Amino acid sequence: MRGTVLYGPRDVRFEDREDPRIEKPTDAVIRISATCVCGSDLWPYRGIQKVEQPMPMGHEYCGVVEEVGSAVKTVKPGQFVIGSFCISDNTCPNCQAGYQSGCQNLEFMSRAQAPILRVPFADGTLVPTPELPPDDIIPSLLTISDVLGTGWFAADAANVKPGSTVVVVGDGAVGLLGVVSAKLMGAERIVAMSRHEKRQQLAKGFGATEIVTERGDEGVARIKELTKGIGADSVLECVGTQESMMQAIQSTRPGGSIGYVGVPHGLQLDMWQVFFKLVRLHGGPAPVRRYLPDLINLVWDRKINPGKVFDLTLPLEQVAEGYRAMDERRAIKALLRP
Amino acid sequence: MRGTVLYGPRDVRFEDREDPRIEKPTDAVIRISATCVCGSDLWPYRGIQKVEQPMPMGHEYCGVVEEVGSAVKTVKPGQFVIGSFCISDNTCPNCQAGYQSGCQNLEFMSRAQAPILRVPFADGTLVPTPELPPDDIIPSLLTISDVLGTGWFAADAANVKPGSTVVVVGDGAVGLLGVVSAKLMGAERIVAMSRHEKRQQLAKGFGATEIVTERGDEGVARIKELTKGIGADSVLECVGTQESMMQAIQSTRPGGSIGYVGVPHGLQLDMWQVFFKLVRLHGGPAPVRRYLPDLINLVWDRKINPGKVFDLTLPLEQVAEGYRAMDERRAIKALLRP
Repeated sequence: MRGTVLYGPRDVRFEDREDPRIEKPTDAVIRISATCVCGSDLWPYRGIQKVEQPMPMGHEYCGVVEEVGSAVKTVKPGQFVIGSFCISDNTCPNCQAGYQSGCQNLEFMSRAQAPILRVPFADGTLVPTPELPPDDIIPSLLTISDVLGTGWFAADAANVKPGSTVVVVGDGAVGLLGVVSAKLMGAERIVAMSRHEKRQQLAKGFGATEIVTERGDEGVARIKELTKGIGADSVLECVGTQESMMQAIQSTRPGGSIGYVGVPHGLQLDMWQVFFKLVRLHGGPAPVRRYLPDLINLVWDRKINPGKVFDLTLPLEQVAEGYRAMDERRAIKALLRP
Repeated sequence: MRGTVLYGPRDVRFEDREDPRIEKPTDAVIRISATCVCGSDLWPYRGIQKVEQPMPMGHEYCGVVEEVGSAVKTVKPGQFVIGSFCISDNTCPNCQAGYQSGCQNLEFMSRAQAPILRVPFADGTLVPTPELPPDDIIPSLLTISDVLGTGWFAADAANVKPGSTVVVVGDGAVGLLGVVSAKLMGAERIVAMSRHEKRQQLAKGFGATEIVTERGDEGVARIKELTKGIGADSVLECVGTQESMMQAIQSTRPGGSIGYVGVPHGLQLDMWQVFFKLVRLHGGPAPVRRYLPDLINLVWDRKINPGKVFDLTLPLEQVAEGYRAMDERRAIKALLRP
């Protein structure tokens, strides 16, 4: 089997790797139907996150179960399944509390940009669809694995409620699907912060009611202007930089909430500043497993079409071009089909 | 009138100041029945917070209304009143949302260690008691002004619920009254972190079920041990240092909540570390005004006795000794009677 390996900054190779196989009784092996490149893959691709040794890449996946270990009970060969980017047992106290991304047996998936994938803790990580899906909804099902699940968590962590005024910082796939999530949770106003024409249009199609192109202090001033000087009820922080986080905090009303899901890079919060803002902060790696069943239903019933974030589809072997296109912002998100 | 002024590190003077008087129609002038020294007063007293010019001190107060401005409607001369350390109009959108400490007209009280005090926005800041209180509950009523209100906010911000496991970091008056608050909110286990015999006893009297004397990594390990490796549901951070905040974050279970009310000093959160903890953070200056009516009732009906945190009572003119005793940890909290 050939799979994707990152050797260093901008050095993505699709090369021979050992075939995945059942290693533990709780494993499943699945044949990937679709995988993709994530915004977070760009951190090591750009050299911002160090690559110490060749890294097998990919953590978003869906496909058909080929084989399961002897202890696996809830999925079986032939089923179409979607899994979280976080591998979880779904039985420990943290999982039971709905925080599968804090599982006591947590692992992060990292070999999914490949045709075949071993999934540890299959019962705790994978959820099957009602039956084999029609091909056209596979991209949408794939988003649940991370970007939709993460956007949903951002909105949930930011306490979006019916009638809320919501600001979304970040116009990548997660931010855009944060818009979808806020809309479904009943937000009345959804302000998308974006200066990218195509992403603005997608945000509007997903339910954004306003677009703000300004950033930093000017962006904050614009949000204050739109909210009578008060700030938003809920802000989704979907970037992870110092600037984006401070923009989120300063755009939130006292008592309002920030859901932060952008993986932090060089982000230090000066708590003296934050203290007087009286905001609520919640975030981290999304407990996608908690949301999987509901999000599968929403896609299955065609109530949402999050697959629209894929504006580039490539054969898996051209994965390197997927990274390039996203790095250069030519593509929002690259879908890869084996 | 003589009042308290801080001139620099460890230089507290009780000296002549102008008599407070009605300056605006929304003011009240009250005759102080009791005031006190706050843990946060020790930051400038110890020189950790710079004193640029002589600072009139004191933000905790209760007493009898002497005079009100022409626009004041809800309090009248002769009434016994308690006010928040935050001066608020209680009408702006932030106040209406319950965040009076984020009032659009916010001021911080700072002249209350004196026999007479001007209170701006009297209608928005002061709440009267049902009638003149018996002398023995005046210390408890005084705590509502800040330390009880702040401990209550810490517990509220940390989402303490019936059955919760709660950890309280900090054994000052706020931490101790955080124990009282958690108990009233139905916490099943309350772990007080303290290595000070007298404070441990007080914490137990207030409802703490366990005492942990270890700090830092050892303290975290002890909390993990007590919670089957998971961490607490709710942690009250009542100190404000780097060590205390990291201890709080690391003692919280994924999805659990930290209510932080210790004024941050040199506190920088490395969000890369915090991200993977999946905790909820909420805090800041407590919106005491929101809680004042309920807390007055609890004290009035003698359901709680938070005044026990005062273990030293001095005539107001000996205020400097109050600072010294608290600085040297000879006293938990010094009550001052004019």
